[in-house]
Amino acid sequence: MPHHVLAMLNQPSADAPPHDEDAPAFEFVDPERPQLSAMDLGATRGDGIFESISVGDGKPQALDHHLRRFTSSARKLELPAPDEAAWREAILAAIDELQPGAEAWVKAVLTRGVEGDSRPTGWVYAAHAPDHSRTRIDGVRVVVLDRGYRHDVETTSPWLLAGAKTLSYAVNRAVAREAHRRGADDVIFSSSDGYVLEGPTSTVVFQRGNALLTPGTGLGILDGTTQANLFHYAESLGMTTGFELLTPAELAKGDAAWLVSSVRLAAPIRSLDGVDFPMNPVLSAGMNEYLLSLRH
Amino acid sequence: MPHHVLAMLNQPSADAPPHDEDAPAFEFVDPERPQLSAMDLGATRGDGIFESISVGDGKPQALDHHLRRFTSSARKLELPAPDEAAWREAILAAIDELQPGAEAWVKAVLTRGVEGDSRPTGWVYAAHAPDHSRTRIDGVRVVVLDRGYRHDVETTSPWLLAGAKTLSYAVNRAVAREAHRRGADDVIFSSSDGYVLEGPTSTVVFQRGNALLTPGTGLGILDGTTQANLFHYAESLGMTTGFELLTPAELAKGDAAWLVSSVRLAAPIRSLDGVDFPMNPVLSAGMNEYLLSLRH
Repeated sequence: MPHHVLAMLNQPSADAPPHDEDAPAFEFVDPERPQLSAMDLGATRGDGIFESISVGDGKPQALDHHLRRFTSSARKLELPAPDEAAWREAILAAIDELQPGAEAWVKAVLTRGVEGDSRPTGWVYAAHAPDHSRTRIDGVRVVVLDRGYRHDVETTSPWLLAGAKTLSYAVNRAVAREAHRRGADDVIFSSSDGYVLEGPTSTVVFQRGNALLTPGTGLGILDGTTQANLFHYAESLGMTTGFELLTPAELAKGDAAWLVSSVRLAAPIRSLDGVDFPMNPVLSAGMNEYLLSLRH
Repeated sequence: MPHHVLAMLNQPSADAPPHDEDAPAFEFVDPERPQLSAMDLGATRGDGIFESISVGDGKPQALDHHLRRFTSSARKLELPAPDEAAWREAILAAIDELQPGAEAWVKAVLTRGVEGDSRPTGWVYAAHAPDHSRTRIDGVRVVVLDRGYRHDVETTSPWLLAGAKTLSYAVNRAVAREAHRRGADDVIFSSSDGYVLEGPTSTVVFQRGNALLTPGTGLGILDGTTQANLFHYAESLGMTTGFELLTPAELAKGDAAWLVSSVRLAAPIRSLDGVDFPMNPVLSAGMNEYLLSLRH
């Protein structure tokens, strides 16, 4: 069985015509062969959305939450609404098709399709995930970089698409290069008015005493699927949870902090802008065990 | 002869290996068939750059300037430097392959390639252009929309890639939808600190008395190829030219203004945020005649 698989959806949205009236809902194709048009607006304009979903023991994690967020991103970009049942079917089939065993991940992508055509393009890509177990213990060195936007652009300027998971991720790749240049592994974005936002591919979660907190949505911050699960876990430990807008200087006074995401899970922050950051190995281990348990 | 053609480059950068040791520099392929991998970072992350070049009578306009800007965008994204000679050859061949006659345009695209592979992907797409001759006379209704960034992010936060022509254009597509919702045709971006920047696919040029002005580069604004040509033209008329940072309210007091771009050329602004804007039909006609003459 293959270590990566690709399924192309025939009708990614019920609001748009299928690509082929007689074809099945999705088709497995060779991921090593070209499958996209050079005129696809996903490729020429980054005009589309995606979700990355982690897989353990053949089961996708938080699939409902991911599909809801996929639909929410589509709404923000005014894309035809994803047919969630069709995507669910293709995602589960792609996982089944994958060689079992290792940690895996699935990426669902919906683009506006070829310019001038009314049919969006949709595909599901599934592959084995790199092993993140050391990072979950050793942590990541993080630098704070300006995201350029005020913290409230999601409400003042919805056309900036803050809070949507779009294919226009060139900036998220550029900040990762800047982090490496600064001797760090990852990034926390700050708003132009000085608040902690999120990582380029993660949510910021921090501990202060008996509370587990996150800057919260509505700040151009993605609705974190993994963060939501972590809050359930923290509450089961008797911790309080909540949302708090804070500055990087205030974050630096916290008792511990993590970058949390679907595939890497909870990566403790070991340094912030070159300064050692306190870690909470017991809570980190509990968090990651809990998140891994959800995959089974 | 076809109304659109697609050429895939074998070695878009001399700094990276070719896709096929034995293949020619570029190959014409069927633009209606899939040519890109679903794992290409251009499609999954908007991680690449482009240039749109206008063509008249089989000749690309300002090709040198476009290639320089292409290379400058590549540098900002830390992509392998485009082999300008290879791109020039593919662009000229694509134009030759196109059915002659109508106004045409060429798009050059360079992506970071398939994730984990060291070879960038490059293609040249050429097609007949829509007829913009009425717009050059009748003008466009424009609204001012917040770009979210301060005017100086290009210098303070280079990782935001302001001033690079990237494939991450979802926001530029979203503002066009917002403009249509407001009964307008196009957009001028303003900075979060209140200055006029540029259009999503154009440069802002305005007239005040005997001066032709533009907000200028270094503001996260693209180095406008068409604007540079217009300044030559204005100087030939005895006008002064220059750069000036100004607010939308100050722009509204100008004698005339245009959104200028490679394919549509100089589109006079006929209204700004719903208020009629003065037009200078004589200067508009002269500008567009001059720009068209450069194609011959």
